[in-house]
Amino acid sequence: MPKISQKGQMMPSSPIRKLVPYSDAAKARGVHVYHLNIGQPDIETPKGAREAVRTADIPVIAYTHSAGNISYRKKLVEYYHSVGIDITPDEILITTGGSEGLLFAFNSCMDPGDEIIIPEPFYANYNGFAVTCGVVVKPIVSTIENGFALPSIEEFEKIITPKTKAIMICNPNNPTGYLYYKEEILKLGEIAKKHDLFLFADEVYREFCYDGVEHFSVMQLTDIAQNVVLLDSVSKRYSACGVRTGALITHNKDVYNTAMKFAQARLSPPTYGQILGEAAVSTPKEYFDAVITDYVARRNTIVNGVNSIPGCFVPMPKGAFYCVARLPIDDSDRFCRWLLEDFNYNGETVMMAPATGFYSTPGKGKNEVRISYCLNVNDLAKAVKCLEEALKVYPGRTN
Amino acid sequence: MPKISQKGQMMPSSPIRKLVPYSDAAKARGVHVYHLNIGQPDIETPKGAREAVRTADIPVIAYTHSAGNISYRKKLVEYYHSVGIDITPDEILITTGGSEGLLFAFNSCMDPGDEIIIPEPFYANYNGFAVTCGVVVKPIVSTIENGFALPSIEEFEKIITPKTKAIMICNPNNPTGYLYYKEEILKLGEIAKKHDLFLFADEVYREFCYDGVEHFSVMQLTDIAQNVVLLDSVSKRYSACGVRTGALITHNKDVYNTAMKFAQARLSPPTYGQILGEAAVSTPKEYFDAVITDYVARRNTIVNGVNSIPGCFVPMPKGAFYCVARLPIDDSDRFCRWLLEDFNYNGETVMMAPATGFYSTPGKGKNEVRISYCLNVNDLAKAVKCLEEALKVYPGRTN
Repeated sequence: MPKISQKGQMMPSSPIRKLVPYSDAAKARGVHVYHLNIGQPDIETPKGAREAVRTADIPVIAYTHSAGNISYRKKLVEYYHSVGIDITPDEILITTGGSEGLLFAFNSCMDPGDEIIIPEPFYANYNGFAVTCGVVVKPIVSTIENGFALPSIEEFEKIITPKTKAIMICNPNNPTGYLYYKEEILKLGEIAKKHDLFLFADEVYREFCYDGVEHFSVMQLTDIAQNVVLLDSVSKRYSACGVRTGALITHNKDVYNTAMKFAQARLSPPTYGQILGEAAVSTPKEYFDAVITDYVARRNTIVNGVNSIPGCFVPMPKGAFYCVARLPIDDSDRFCRWLLEDFNYNGETVMMAPATGFYSTPGKGKNEVRISYCLNVNDLAKAVKCLEEALKVYPGRTN
Repeated sequence: MPKISQKGQMMPSSPIRKLVPYSDAAKARGVHVYHLNIGQPDIETPKGAREAVRTADIPVIAYTHSAGNISYRKKLVEYYHSVGIDITPDEILITTGGSEGLLFAFNSCMDPGDEIIIPEPFYANYNGFAVTCGVVVKPIVSTIENGFALPSIEEFEKIITPKTKAIMICNPNNPTGYLYYKEEILKLGEIAKKHDLFLFADEVYREFCYDGVEHFSVMQLTDIAQNVVLLDSVSKRYSACGVRTGALITHNKDVYNTAMKFAQARLSPPTYGQILGEAAVSTPKEYFDAVITDYVARRNTIVNGVNSIPGCFVPMPKGAFYCVARLPIDDSDRFCRWLLEDFNYNGETVMMAPATGFYSTPGKGKNEVRISYCLNVNDLAKAVKCLEEALKVYPGRTN
C-alpha cells in the first residue's frame, strides 16, 4: 500500500473541528451545547442576494471567466470605491472563497522554503495553506496584555531574514477581534517597503468595526501598491459562507497575471456564488446597521460577562466577531474537551476553540480560548454562565 | 517591488485560453468563429437539477460539512452503485470541481520532487496542478497510429524510478477521446500493484461511451483498492461546469483522512453546487440517451469530415467529446493562430486547441490539434469545411 505524502502528514487538523466528535457525543447524551467555537454567523443572508439565485434562469450552467464574471467585477469596483479602495475590474480575481485567494497569493508570491511573518495568534488555516505551499510561517507574538496590538517594528526586524517574502495580517482579526489602527497599517507599509516584502491582508471582516473606529485597508497604502495583495470574501460580510465567493485584489500586474494562471488551471469560480455576490453588493445599509448593532450587543455580553468571572480576562475587541480570553486553566485543549465530555450545568455546556490552534509557537495559547459570538444575546449570556460554573469545578484550574 | 515565485513563473498558461485574444480580434473584425477549442457543452443542464437550486429556500447560506453534505454523499452512493462502483458515504469527499479533487489527491499522496506517470497527450491542466504541487510529470507517449491506446507495460517500467509515486489516467480521455478497455485498466492495476504506486483516474466523462463499449472504472480493481483514487465531477455529466462540484473517492482511509485535512483548511465546497449535484442524480435515463445520440452524431461529423480532408487523420474515439487530429501542418500553434488572424472562408473560421499544450515532451503535437465537438452537427460540418479550405491555403502546409 503506497504511503501518503510527508506534506499530508504535516497538514494540521482544524483546531475548531477536532472537538466536533466530543460535541456530537455531548448532544447524544442530551446536553445542550452552546457553540462559541465557530465563525458561522446565524444572521440571515440578505434576501435580495438569495432571490438573485432563485430567479436566475440559466439553461446551461457553464464555466465563467476564470477571473469571474465581468459584471460582478464591475459591481465590486463600486463596492470597493464605497469603502475608499480604488481599483479596476482587471485588478480583481474572483476566487472560490477567501481560502482559494490565499492559496493563489501564497503560490504566486512564495516558493517552498520562503518565510512569511504573521502576528500570532492567527487564523489557524493559514498554517494549512502554508504547509500546502511549503512556506514557513514565522510567527511574531502579539500579547493579550496589549489587546493583541501590532508588535513593534523592532520585533518584526528581528525575524526578517533573506528568506522572508511576505507579511500577512487579518484585519479585523480572527481570532482576536483586534482592529488595526491606521497608524499600525502605515507602520506595516514602511516595513514592507524597506525590506521589499509582499503585504497580504485578509480583510473579510471589514464591515464589522465597532465603537466608531474606521477600517483602514492595506489597499489605501498607495506608495507600496505593488507590494499589497488583498484577500477578501463575501462569506462573513453577507453571512453567506457556503457560496464560496472570494477575491484576490492587487495593483501588481505580475502577481495578478500569475494568480490568473493558477485560476485558469481550476477553470472558474462557482457560478451561483458569483450571482449571489453580485446581487449582494446592493444590500441596503440598514442590513449592516442592524447586524452591527446586534454584534456590538453580543460582544458586550461576552466580553463583559467573561471579564466578570474571577480569574478571566478578555480585551475589548473593536472588530470581527471573535475574542480571545485568558482563563485560569492548565490546558485549553484539555479544558475545551472536558467541557464537552465531563461537564454540564443544568444540562448545558459550552464549546470553544482552544487558542493553541491559533499559535504556531509551541506552548502558546494554553490558557487562552477563542470565543466566537455568533449566537443571540440570551444564548451568549447562558453560555457565559456555563463557563463561570465550569471554572468553579474544572480540575485543572490554576488560580 | 518584490518578485513573484519561481513556481508562478513555471506555471503554464492554458493552451486553450492563450488564443482567446485572437479569437476576440477575429470576432471584432466580423469573422464568425466556430469554437472547437473548448470542452464547454452547449447541452442544457437537466431542468430538475436547476429547479432544485431555484426552489431551495435557505435563510443562512452556511458552510456545509468539509466533505460535503451527507445527504448528497448518500445520494452519490446510489449513483455509483448504478455504474458498478461500490462505496460508502465516508469514502466520498465532495470537492470544488474535479480540479480541487486533483489538487487534494496530488497533495495527499505526493511530495515535491515525486514523479507521476501520465500517458500523453493529456489534459493540459494536469501540468498546472503538478507545478502547483512541485510534482514532476513523467509522460509516456501514446501514439495517434495506435488510436492513443495504453502504452505497453514495458514502456511504463522503463520510466519507473524510486521517485515514482503514481500513475494517472483520464478515462474516457481528454484530449484524445480514447476509452480504455477493461484489459488496459487491469494492466494498469498490475503495474500499480507490482510497483506499489497510487493509481489516480479522472473519470469525469464516464457517461460518454459510444459504440456499445462499456466503461470500466479503476474502482472496479478490487484487489488494489488501497492504491486507487477516483476523481470525478458533475461538470460534464450534467453539463453543469459552472457549479464547481466534484468528488475525490477512495477506499484508502489514510488518503481520505489526509485529503480531509486539506478540505477542512478550505472549509467547505459550494452549497448551491451540492444542491444541484444531489438533485442531478435523479436525472432520467432519457436525458443521457438523447445526449449520447447527439454526441455520436457530432463525433461522426467531425471524425468522418476531417478524415475526408486530404492529408488529415483522426482515430475514431469511443468516448468523451474530443478527438486529436493529425494535420499536414508545420506548427499547430502557428496554424491555430493563423486561422484566427489571417484566414476566413465566407466570413467564417475555426478555433482549435494546438495539441502541443497537451504534451509535456517538447516538440510533440506540432502537427496535431485537439478538436472538441460541443457544437451542433450543422455548425460542425461548416467548421470542417473551413478547416478543409484553410489547409488549401495555409502557408505552413507540409504535404
